[in-house]
Amino acid sequence: MDTIVLVGCIAGTLTTLSFVPQVMRSWKLRETKDLSLAMLLLFAIGVLLWTVYGIWIGSLPIIAANIITFALILFLLWMKYRFH
Amino acid sequence: MDTIVLVGCIAGTLTTLSFVPQVMRSWKLRETKDLSLAMLLLFAIGVLLWTVYGIWIGSLPIIAANIITFALILFLLWMKYRFH
Repeated sequence: MDTIVLVGCIAGTLTTLSFVPQVMRSWKLRETKDLSLAMLLLFAIGVLLWTVYGIWIGSLPIIAANIITFALILFLLWMKYRFH
Repeated sequence: MDTIVLVGCIAGTLTTLSFVPQVMRSWKLRETKDLSLAMLLLFAIGVLLWTVYGIWIGSLPIIAANIITFALILFLLWMKYRFH
């Protein structure tokens, strides 16, 4: 694998995985008061556009990372609504 | 400007700007309990690597977005520490 693709993959893995402890914390605390709704919404639209960008330039790490991040953000949005 | 670069710029603007309402909320509430420290740390390292990736493939939107995001995450980390 290209070193550059590897760096992209590690970067994507980190920024994507970072939402896993956030999802776990929100689920455990059953509280999302300190999370900004605007942040979650803007981020969700942003990662969708990053996915489009990734498909366009043919970057697998960008595509994969953003699709998974989108799913995690959707779950956070659901908890933000549910645990309000 | 290339349409593809434009999409990347909008994506980068959204995922970057998304942290502004989070910073404002944390600053206003003086509380960051619901924010996951692991999330912030992983995200900070991740965006640093995305910056390296962006420099490598010569993508201006990736470079710019991730440098600004890194600064905002640093501020959130400081608040997480300060308002503990």
